[in-house]
Amino acid sequence: MKLNIAILPGDGIGPEVTNQAIKALKAIASEFNHNFKFTTADVGAVAIDKHNDALPEKTLELCKKSDAILFGAIGDPKYDNDPSAKVRPEQGLLKLRKELGLYANIRPVKAYKTLLDKSPLKKHIIQGTDISIYRELTGGIYFGEKHTSEDGDYASDLCGYSREEIERIAHLAFVAAENRSHKVTLVDKANVLETSRLWRRVVKEVAQQYPDVTLDFLFVDNAAMQMILNPKQFDVILTENMFGDIISDEASVIGGSIGLLASASVGDKYAMFEPIHGSYPQAANKGIANPIASILSAAMLLSHFELHNEAELIRLAVEKSLKLNITTPDINSVVNTVTTSNVGDFIEDFIYNPK
Amino acid sequence: MKLNIAILPGDGIGPEVTNQAIKALKAIASEFNHNFKFTTADVGAVAIDKHNDALPEKTLELCKKSDAILFGAIGDPKYDNDPSAKVRPEQGLLKLRKELGLYANIRPVKAYKTLLDKSPLKKHIIQGTDISIYRELTGGIYFGEKHTSEDGDYASDLCGYSREEIERIAHLAFVAAENRSHKVTLVDKANVLETSRLWRRVVKEVAQQYPDVTLDFLFVDNAAMQMILNPKQFDVILTENMFGDIISDEASVIGGSIGLLASASVGDKYAMFEPIHGSYPQAANKGIANPIASILSAAMLLSHFELHNEAELIRLAVEKSLKLNITTPDINSVVNTVTTSNVGDFIEDFIYNPK
Ligand SMILES: [Mg+2]
Ligand SMILES: [Mg+2]
Repeated sequence: MKLNIAILPGDGIGPEVTNQAIKALKAIASEFNHNFKFTTADVGAVAIDKHNDALPEKTLELCKKSDAILFGAIGDPKYDNDPSAKVRPEQGLLKLRKELGLYANIRPVKAYKTLLDKSPLKKHIIQGTDISIYRELTGGIYFGEKHTSEDGDYASDLCGYSREEIERIAHLAFVAAENRSHKVTLVDKANVLETSRLWRRVVKEVAQQYPDVTLDFLFVDNAAMQMILNPKQFDVILTENMFGDIISDEASVIGGSIGLLASASVGDKYAMFEPIHGSYPQAANKGIANPIASILSAAMLLSHFELHNEAELIRLAVEKSLKLNITTPDINSVVNTVTTSNVGDFIEDFIYNPK
Repeated sequence: MKLNIAILPGDGIGPEVTNQAIKALKAIASEFNHNFKFTTADVGAVAIDKHNDALPEKTLELCKKSDAILFGAIGDPKYDNDPSAKVRPEQGLLKLRKELGLYANIRPVKAYKTLLDKSPLKKHIIQGTDISIYRELTGGIYFGEKHTSEDGDYASDLCGYSREEIERIAHLAFVAAENRSHKVTLVDKANVLETSRLWRRVVKEVAQQYPDVTLDFLFVDNAAMQMILNPKQFDVILTENMFGDIISDEASVIGGSIGLLASASVGDKYAMFEPIHGSYPQAANKGIANPIASILSAAMLLSHFELHNEAELIRLAVEKSLKLNITTPDINSVVNTVTTSNVGDFIEDFIYNPK
């Protein structure tokens, strides 16, 4: 298969982890006779520094003519902690999602057997957890109208949702549930928010087209609690943008490390794959960043194009690296000298020589 | 001391747990020669059913002429799951907080020694956790303008904050930190939300008046993760309304049971005390509701009026009940026959006869 893949490494640890994912993809291309072409472009703080724009036009164009995008991470404390900053790194990611119509963020949450002991949660709580979180990505309060009064003493953000925005991701979630454990949990705050009541109304309607999927509801504050008390109760979680941001980051602790979690952002035309971790600037260029989330994002990319054997081989390589403790210090309690590229090298080698 | 205490039992398990708190307060009044007068009024679903109003005028009047309010719980699934309902039980609580100017919700989160094993989190993670969450309670998206389009296909909620709303609770949080471990963590989403950037700006200014308190910042999605990874890092958490709702319910699992957690809602004139758990309608009238949160809310009420010995006696009684397994089934792994009123009776007896 011929695939044009746009590489957007971004900030902090983004470049170094993305490099390991590229190594894995190149090995896959070589072993399976695919033709993957990689083109790199700037996004985030690095793009602001170079072009004064978190998402330069050239980067957006590249994405639009590519088959898929592999994204690193975004964000720099020099902008986050400056309330007066006019251009923000995160705007790059938000705008990209909006421009490409990537309305659904999909995050698998699994408890890896070899890492059960590393979670802050007790083993019996997390064992067997297998959740897929469908987070709406282009609506809600992150994209609503923002306002600050002239004297700077009042600010507001608007959270808005339309029926269409809810319907399209609801269908994705129900289709996913049909191929999993047939359960969708809508996380909302319908006892207080008007937007949540719209979500509930629309999702109930959509549910009628999937009679073999059970739909239930959970208020977001209760969901934040249930995710710790009993994560196994969840199959597919469907939720709006900000609730999904909070709940999926919370759920990330189940696996023992946020450094393991991949995600896909899909729309009707484009698809982007990225680790859920941030740019983690304190760890940049130290060789300690965990590249597995980025490598598993590459696997999700392959699955997206129905290259299932290829994706499976990457996942096998990752599981092997976990088993052999060829992992970065964040999840390695045996040796703390394994670097980001050591992990990438091992996975690359395994792909060439699976055993 | 003479205290007029308004009792608002509300819905579900509200009445039965509040009754146990009243028993404790009556015992305290008798032992310490106080004059507590209790007057009961309707709020929530029960008030809608009787008066078609979640907060009848009579109830509000009673609260305004009382010294303090002891609140039960609110909410009924028959209203929650009906998106067309015009009057909602939660409106009663929201309106009450607004009318009484209860702008700060204070929630202590502690890991009780005798319950360390009951938490879904590992012992070494939670041991020693001692957090006080200051949640803004009358602003933000729960109170912002709500809108649904005529065709019902678009909905919005507005999140707004003013400098004053932020300043007054920030001062409470910093004063609390001065008497604790001298650290305030502001939880926000300043990389995306305009309101969060206002919070950050104002809280930084307020912080300058408390030079011996350290201020740090955490994005809400990261905070949801850190609360599980390392809750001991927190001293005072300061945050806006909805983030506080989510984070404090999440934090409630640390103690092993949400049935243990009390809270205070304070303003410049009034103060209300309530368990953080909801109305839990499935458990109502079965004798299985845990009354400890309501009883500890009564202790917070006593502390509020500087009746520290009285409050301490209630807390001692609670700790004793935990130690002796005189607790409801939710936290009792030894016997599952202890009822709500058994717990209340034990605590009442202990107050009359501490040993
Ligand atoms: Mg996040
Ligand atoms: Mg809540």
